[in-house]
Amino acid sequence: MASSLSSEFFNVSVPAEYVAVIEINRPKKLNSFTHEMFTDLGAIFKNLSSDPEVRAIILTAAGERAFTAGLDITAASQGALSGEGQKGPVEKDTARKAWDLRRHIKDLQEGVNYIESCEKPVICVMHGISYGAAVDISTCCDVRICSKDTIFSVREVAIGLAADLGTLTRLGHTGVPMSWIKDVCLTARDFSAQEAMTMGFVSGVYDSKAAALDRAMVLAKDIAAASPVAVQSTKAVINYSRDHTVADGLDYVAVWNAAMLQTQDVKDALFSKKEKRVPKFAKL
Amino acid sequence: MASSLSSEFFNVSVPAEYVAVIEINRPKKLNSFTHEMFTDLGAIFKNLSSDPEVRAIILTAAGERAFTAGLDITAASQGALSGEGQKGPVEKDTARKAWDLRRHIKDLQEGVNYIESCEKPVICVMHGISYGAAVDISTCCDVRICSKDTIFSVREVAIGLAADLGTLTRLGHTGVPMSWIKDVCLTARDFSAQEAMTMGFVSGVYDSKAAALDRAMVLAKDIAAASPVAVQSTKAVINYSRDHTVADGLDYVAVWNAAMLQTQDVKDALFSKKEKRVPKFAKL
Amino acid sequence: MASSLSSEFFNVSVPAEYVAVIEINRPKKLNSFTHEMFTDLGAIFKNLSSDPEVRAIILTAAGERAFTAGLDITAASQGALSGEGQKGPVEKDTARKAWDLRRHIKDLQEGVNYIESCEKPVICVMHGISYGAAVDISTCCDVRICSKDTIFSVREVAIGLAADLGTLTRLGHTGVPMSWIKDVCLTARDFSAQEAMTMGFVSGVYDSKAAALDRAMVLAKDIAAASPVAVQSTKAVINYSRDHTVADGLDYVAVWNAAMLQTQDVKDALFSKKEKRVPKFAKL
Amino acid sequence: MASSLSSEFFNVSVPAEYVAVIEINRPKKLNSFTHEMFTDLGAIFKNLSSDPEVRAIILTAAGERAFTAGLDITAASQGALSGEGQKGPVEKDTARKAWDLRRHIKDLQEGVNYIESCEKPVICVMHGISYGAAVDISTCCDVRICSKDTIFSVREVAIGLAADLGTLTRLGHTGVPMSWIKDVCLTARDFSAQEAMTMGFVSGVYDSKAAALDRAMVLAKDIAAASPVAVQSTKAVINYSRDHTVADGLDYVAVWNAAMLQTQDVKDALFSKKEKRVPKFAKL
Amino acid sequence: MASSLSSEFFNVSVPAEYVAVIEINRPKKLNSFTHEMFTDLGAIFKNLSSDPEVRAIILTAAGERAFTAGLDITAASQGALSGEGQKGPVEKDTARKAWDLRRHIKDLQEGVNYIESCEKPVICVMHGISYGAAVDISTCCDVRICSKDTIFSVREVAIGLAADLGTLTRLGHTGVPMSWIKDVCLTARDFSAQEAMTMGFVSGVYDSKAAALDRAMVLAKDIAAASPVAVQSTKAVINYSRDHTVADGLDYVAVWNAAMLQTQDVKDALFSKKEKRVPKFAKL
Amino acid sequence: MASSLSSEFFNVSVPAEYVAVIEINRPKKLNSFTHEMFTDLGAIFKNLSSDPEVRAIILTAAGERAFTAGLDITAASQGALSGEGQKGPVEKDTARKAWDLRRHIKDLQEGVNYIESCEKPVICVMHGISYGAAVDISTCCDVRICSKDTIFSVREVAIGLAADLGTLTRLGHTGVPMSWIKDVCLTARDFSAQEAMTMGFVSGVYDSKAAALDRAMVLAKDIAAASPVAVQSTKAVINYSRDHTVADGLDYVAVWNAAMLQTQDVKDALFSKKEKRVPKFAKL
Repeated sequence: MASSLSSEFFNVSVPAEYVAVIEINRPKKLNSFTHEMFTDLGAIFKNLSSDPEVRAIILTAAGERAFTAGLDITAASQGALSGEGQKGPVEKDTARKAWDLRRHIKDLQEGVNYIESCEKPVICVMHGISYGAAVDISTCCDVRICSKDTIFSVREVAIGLAADLGTLTRLGHTGVPMSWIKDVCLTARDFSAQEAMTMGFVSGVYDSKAAALDRAMVLAKDIAAASPVAVQSTKAVINYSRDHTVADGLDYVAVWNAAMLQTQDVKDALFSKKEKRVPKFAKL
Repeated sequence: MASSLSSEFFNVSVPAEYVAVIEINRPKKLNSFTHEMFTDLGAIFKNLSSDPEVRAIILTAAGERAFTAGLDITAASQGALSGEGQKGPVEKDTARKAWDLRRHIKDLQEGVNYIESCEKPVICVMHGISYGAAVDISTCCDVRICSKDTIFSVREVAIGLAADLGTLTRLGHTGVPMSWIKDVCLTARDFSAQEAMTMGFVSGVYDSKAAALDRAMVLAKDIAAASPVAVQSTKAVINYSRDHTVADGLDYVAVWNAAMLQTQDVKDALFSKKEKRVPKFAKL
Repeated sequence: MASSLSSEFFNVSVPAEYVAVIEINRPKKLNSFTHEMFTDLGAIFKNLSSDPEVRAIILTAAGERAFTAGLDITAASQGALSGEGQKGPVEKDTARKAWDLRRHIKDLQEGVNYIESCEKPVICVMHGISYGAAVDISTCCDVRICSKDTIFSVREVAIGLAADLGTLTRLGHTGVPMSWIKDVCLTARDFSAQEAMTMGFVSGVYDSKAAALDRAMVLAKDIAAASPVAVQSTKAVINYSRDHTVADGLDYVAVWNAAMLQTQDVKDALFSKKEKRVPKFAKL
Repeated sequence: MASSLSSEFFNVSVPAEYVAVIEINRPKKLNSFTHEMFTDLGAIFKNLSSDPEVRAIILTAAGERAFTAGLDITAASQGALSGEGQKGPVEKDTARKAWDLRRHIKDLQEGVNYIESCEKPVICVMHGISYGAAVDISTCCDVRICSKDTIFSVREVAIGLAADLGTLTRLGHTGVPMSWIKDVCLTARDFSAQEAMTMGFVSGVYDSKAAALDRAMVLAKDIAAASPVAVQSTKAVINYSRDHTVADGLDYVAVWNAAMLQTQDVKDALFSKKEKRVPKFAKL
Repeated sequence: MASSLSSEFFNVSVPAEYVAVIEINRPKKLNSFTHEMFTDLGAIFKNLSSDPEVRAIILTAAGERAFTAGLDITAASQGALSGEGQKGPVEKDTARKAWDLRRHIKDLQEGVNYIESCEKPVICVMHGISYGAAVDISTCCDVRICSKDTIFSVREVAIGLAADLGTLTRLGHTGVPMSWIKDVCLTARDFSAQEAMTMGFVSGVYDSKAAALDRAMVLAKDIAAASPVAVQSTKAVINYSRDHTVADGLDYVAVWNAAMLQTQDVKDALFSKKEKRVPKFAKL
Repeated sequence: MASSLSSEFFNVSVPAEYVAVIEINRPKKLNSFTHEMFTDLGAIFKNLSSDPEVRAIILTAAGERAFTAGLDITAASQGALSGEGQKGPVEKDTARKAWDLRRHIKDLQEGVNYIESCEKPVICVMHGISYGAAVDISTCCDVRICSKDTIFSVREVAIGLAADLGTLTRLGHTGVPMSWIKDVCLTARDFSAQEAMTMGFVSGVYDSKAAALDRAMVLAKDIAAASPVAVQSTKAVINYSRDHTVADGLDYVAVWNAAMLQTQDVKDALFSKKEKRVPKFAKL
């Protein structure tokens, strides 16, 4: 069961049929992330990806102050960022430290990537402080909405580094203006929910965290009520198309649908429409 | 002549010099599309693509209620969607049905692709119900405008399938926010002309279908009055660049213009400007 | 020193620590560009790219009337555009003229490309007439802002040619709506600062050229005050990611940061934050 | 029926179950190609591609002297190559001539491309003079074999042009040494069957045309006896993989086989193997 | 320790400093692979990839008869290939079976991919029957050699399916002739060690399995004696370059070596050369 | 004139009409390369690229002992490789050293790249010791031949680094077997002219340096006698196609030839053939 995936810093629940909610749960530390938390979050998404009881996922965070303040600087200062994590009995040379760092970054990226590769749609609901990792993580989600008090920041430049968990890579592929992306990434400045909405980074701003979660729940239920073959195919094809030419994308969806159109769901959807009843789709 | 391309469900006319108008003409069925109509529409665009009498094309639809309600579900239910189209005397196995379906999808895609590959600029004017195929088709056009009463929907999830004629592939390459794309594609919800404008899906909203058509005509005439070498080269290079890296795009336009700058049109444009007269460009 | 890069048509100054300002300086000709000016501008950016005294660059133009009116038509008419530049004692055949033209275009592109490949962030501040080359050049910059009196135009179609210095290639990769790009490129029509802001082409509009420059200076100083390793890595990774898949982008930033995280800047940034002092970063 | 596809210059026959043979039949002109012949040959392959009675195709040519001497120079001299084909009542400018030529080349390419996109495997059997178009055409085929008297040449440079029907594009993707490709393409020199074999351009050399055809027939029958789902999937996946990264290729074959492994053919192949009988596979 | 990775069907040993040998150990079943074995083999390579005690890996197989006969047909017949593995209490529809199959294939691919992504060079030593999975696996290795009695076959077509674990995808990227690849893949025919050598599939053929292993050991020791930074960087860059353009590959190696040239190994290699002693490189 | 490009370490001569010969001329140091020499060689190729008096280029080296022994280790040890070149008054941190190294590598690469981007065909004639840079450089040339005494080696691993001037990137795109590439690159072992021929790395082996040069001269004269439009277009299209899909390559050559087929050379070639005289082509 999805809820059994809960761990120290993440609550996983299923408040409605086929809808899972993941709550980042480290509010005293503003939900900041340690290395392990990226791995844990990835593991949850990897599991939900093939869980037939789940058809839509909401990602939120505990407390009123922050979705996440980003990387846990204190923890990171004692680890990779300071180079301490790389130290052994013998001081390594630069190349070997670099080798360790590359592996370390890829390790963290792997956790974050599982959010994007999760076969089920993911709705990210942000509020309050949403710094650094908040952007890395939310750009992996399908739909981004937030409360009006949200303060975003691509924080990394302020601590002397370029964001390497996905922000700089994925932002340019989310259909938001590049001039604005450069502005916020190069300056590490705060930007508001409203600005995020105007630029298209989020597609909805709500009065409060609760209101945003309500909206996410409506959205998630709508998605969960539809054919899972249709929904998950739609996500798969949009994501594939982002990274490929139009010609490649068209060919891919033709091969994909060659199997998927043989689903019972099309008939169920068409008939139930005709008969004005709600269709029940088999698990996927 | 362009107007000779008219057929049962499509009117083709040339209301102004060098401007062709294609009208989808099945208003009683809300201009919904059968398989054959995709092929027919493709054939019209393929023809206009090399017609020297045409320099700009407007795509519109008959009646006040709909640009198109999308796929003709009744027809499709008796064909590919139900698998009936694939039935022969012997029941085919899953792989063979899949093979037929892939060919069938590619066939439909081919019709739609001719809109995009048409060498002349295409302005799509939408109104009323603009569902499913309306998005597949309009994302192939160069400029999208609509009347304020337009209701859009990426409808496919509602009938149990992922859109496979281009919507999911092309939307992510039209410069609109990805979070919003996922929202409307995963839920199959309606969205208004105003929302389409805010998100950048259309670049103009007008008070009525007539007003939108008027604007399209002005736009088309402007385009038709310019050098066809310049206009059609501009379309070709923008489309090429969408699917390639910047380095590739720059190289391509250099090779392209190596021939095109040798046109008489540059001189004609420069001289007529100096002499304050309207240039007449040779056919292309 | 950066200021020694000044030439007939470009002033280069360093009005604040680490901030260089390049001013296009041919106001009597509306700052229009000759072939040589593209080369000269490229050379300035190439130089600043590796100048450790520079961490942010502002590109502006002299006079109140124009950022640039684009290509100097008079000069071009006597050169490449008329084919005169290609004439030798013997009339060349079409293929040989094409060969010369391709080299000529690539030569001009090379100048413009140096703006994009400059390792330091570039803020483009436009005002007044901003035609043709203004778009080619500004799409190479990282952040685009302007005064409210700015009038933009992708002018090339009006003189019988397709833009070949980058506009048609880069615009589709700046996260602005494709329907709007086609509209302005195919018609060569003027568009205002406000329209440019709504569409996301610029990320800020200010009351006057002076106000826009003030804002640019604040932005540039903020960038110049941050770790140059972080800032320049951020630019490099965003630019790389624009032209690559997400998977490629993630791998690239991991390899990149394997060296860059070994910088002293991370420690300096973290410590100075803790100690609430302004960090001083070593040159890059 | 396949044999009904025969035309003036092409014989199509079905000498064995599921094996079609296409013979280029213009021996008096050394099987040289006119514009129309490329189109006709393409049409034949397009038809066979979806013909359930065909599972393997052999491409050969009539007479003992030549597979093909390439483009019919006499015909071409009166058409595209001389520019005559582009002439109308008014002399066109260079850009417009270029526009016509690009369309013309793409038209010819389209015919040749149908050979490559044919879903059935194609074995090309060459003999004697195999110049120009022989290489364009045979690089589209899956397997290339020849008789020992075959003389190849990438002839185009000798008549003042770069090959534009596929040779220069496809040769570098056939796994033969690039240094050798440049040698033969830049010099237009003849090369023998033996050299073609050593370099890997052909995968078999036989004593005579008849012997080569015998070998092709054995090969074709072997292919025709296997599961058509397996065979045609294998061709599709190898061709896709040639133009994509390994990661893309692996993903594609996984989506492809998701439907194809549900074929009856796997069970038939396994059982008949166990029972030591020859499996009969359903049509595709 | 590497040897602790040994499992039921795989022996892992370290017969020489820094050289690991993996032996496929299911000789009674001709070393055929079950689903679990792909996963297990992947896990071993994933572990060795970051094991500082290992600098070169040899992959071989127990017994004299076979490197591997490929997929364990008996096991597969009861699982995925027959669809039994996909059966639950309720019969799934075609789309859902396809979904399961895609996941299943990707799962198997993941195991195989770990061989390719292993940071240490892998030498594959084949002998006897080397069918199906033998080609999938060996195309992931860096160097392929074999004994002269080796019989290869891309077997999949013979059992009614297209190879989906990598053969069809990777073969075309190994620099062997495409005509030959199509020949062996479409017919599923056997090919000899000598043919594999002539075509470039293997780069060495030896008199016996023992002789091939001896050669592999010499090669592995040579590699293990060199700088691990140099060796593993070389592998990484060649693999990256296979899937990218030359321009991308050059940029990547420049970023890569920016860190790697700061290794102590360059100095150690240069000095020990000058002093004619064997360098000892630090672990990686 | 081409010969005026001669410099301290490079002789440039024009021994036959339209044929330039570049001789690496530092025989006492086995023609090993300093940083400056890469830049100088690049400059020569950049100049010849647009020199209308040159249609084919031969690259050879002075003395009997070596084509080149590769990087001048002594010089490099005092520069980049030791980090000395990066030292200033203040010790730089790792990130800044990496930044300098990346720039340095890209600088060297730029020189080498000019060989590949040279519009004229380049024949590389190697002899004797051909180590390291010999492979970097020759993989940029179009045709590679050598004398039978040539000893090749991808030397870099032996001095503790991965080759970063092109070898590891380009080798995999030269149509030679990947297993062999890995073998020679990972071990840095010597390989003979004969092995290079068998594997396809060179396309000709001759008895002596003189014999190889004779053959190169015949080849160069043949190329120089052909239409320069045809020859240089052929090189351009093959090189473009190497880095692009087949679909992209076909489109590119169609755009390219749209101008190039309008050359006088086609008519000259056809007529002179008919009239059995040697055509004289205009300069390019």
